[in-house]
Amino acid sequence: MKLNQKGLLIVLSGPSGVGKATVRKALFKSPDHKFAYSVSMTTRRPRVGEVDGVDYLFVTEEEFEQRIKDGKLLEFTRFVGNYYGTPLDQVQKLINRGAEVVLEIEVEGAMQVKAKMPDAVLIFIAPPSYDALKKRLLNRGTESEEVILERLEKAHRELTLAAGYDYIVINDDVDNAADRIKAIIRAEHARCRRSLNGYLRLLEETDHE
Amino acid sequence: MKLNQKGLLIVLSGPSGVGKATVRKALFKSPDHKFAYSVSMTTRRPRVGEVDGVDYLFVTEEEFEQRIKDGKLLEFTRFVGNYYGTPLDQVQKLINRGAEVVLEIEVEGAMQVKAKMPDAVLIFIAPPSYDALKKRLLNRGTESEEVILERLEKAHRELTLAAGYDYIVINDDVDNAADRIKAIIRAEHARCRRSLNGYLRLLEETDHE
Repeated sequence: MKLNQKGLLIVLSGPSGVGKATVRKALFKSPDHKFAYSVSMTTRRPRVGEVDGVDYLFVTEEEFEQRIKDGKLLEFTRFVGNYYGTPLDQVQKLINRGAEVVLEIEVEGAMQVKAKMPDAVLIFIAPPSYDALKKRLLNRGTESEEVILERLEKAHRELTLAAGYDYIVINDDVDNAADRIKAIIRAEHARCRRSLNGYLRLLEETDHE
Repeated sequence: MKLNQKGLLIVLSGPSGVGKATVRKALFKSPDHKFAYSVSMTTRRPRVGEVDGVDYLFVTEEEFEQRIKDGKLLEFTRFVGNYYGTPLDQVQKLINRGAEVVLEIEVEGAMQVKAKMPDAVLIFIAPPSYDALKKRLLNRGTESEEVILERLEKAHRELTLAAGYDYIVINDDVDNAADRIKAIIRAEHARCRRSLNGYLRLLEETDHE
C-alpha cells in the first residue's frame, strides 16, 4: 500500500573521501528500490565520451548564472572555476511523479536543499574515524599531502554542519551503510506528515463504495 | 557502532481492535532486538495467576492518585472503574541504560507520553480499512454489536489524533507491520539529534590516542 504519493528526495552528503559515491552505487543496486537519478548541470567542458543530458547537462556560464538569478537551482557550488548544480524543475517533476530521487552532493549544497525543499531527507555520511578518512584520501593517490591536509581540515569544519542534517550514517562498511539508508527511506515513507493524508484518502475509497 | 547511548522509547498505539498486541508480540520475537518491557500499574484486582510486578504493578486507588499528583506517571487512563498507567521512573531508568522500551498503549495515553517525553517515537498502528477493523472486532466475539459500533466510532475519532504521531504503520500483515517498525527503530537511532554527540565523542576517542 503506497500512502506517500509524493515521492522522496534523499540527499547523501558528507566530507570528501568518505565514500559517498560508493554508498550511492551500493544503494542503487538494491533490487527492492527504483531510485531516480537527477542529472547535474555544469559549466565545465564535456570530457571525451561524456554525453550531454546523461553525464551532465552542459551549459554556458551565462545560462548557469541566469538560472541562479531565477532561483531555478536546488543547489549549486563553484569548484575549480566551474559551476555545478542541480536543476530544481527536474527534481520537482520526479518527486511529483512519486519517485525516490537520490542526490549525492557536497555538504554546503545539502544545506541549500534543506532551505528550498524542507521535506528532503538529509543523510550525513560520516567516516568511522579521522584516520579512516585520511587513509582513504591517501589511497586515492591523486592528491598531494598538502591537498589531503586541507581536505581533512575541511572535513573537521563540515562535521559541525552535520547538526543540520536529519540522519548520520557511518560508512564503516558500504553494504551496512546502504542498508541503514534503506531503513531510513522506509521509515520516512511512513512519516505521518507524508502519509496520513494518503491513508485517510485510502480509507474513504475502500469504505464508501 | 552504537552512537545513540540513551536508548529509545517506542510507543505503539492505535484504535481498539487494530491488533496492537499482535504486532508488539511479533516485534518482540525479532532476534536482532532485545526490547525492554515496561510493566503497567493498575488499581484493578489481580486475576487468578497474575503476579504483582510481572503482569502489572497492583496498587491501591490512593497510591495511584498520589502518583498522578506527583507527576510520576508517564501516562494513565481510567477504564471501567480502574486506573491503568505507566510509571515514569521505570521507563526513564531503562532508557538511561540504553534500552529500547516498547509501550503498547491507548491513543490518548500516547499523546500524554509525547508531552512528557518529546523524544519518544510515536507509531500509530492503523487498520487497512474500517471494514477490516469491524471484522476483527466481530471475530473477537466478546463484545455486543452496540459495543462494536461504539468502538468503530471511537476509531473514527482516534484517526484524527494520528496527526500528532510520528509514523503511521498499516497492520495489513503482522510481520510486514513489525518489519516496518524495525526499519523505523533503525532510522530513529541514526537521527542526528540522538546520535551526533555520540559520534563526535567516538571521533575524539579514536583519534586522540
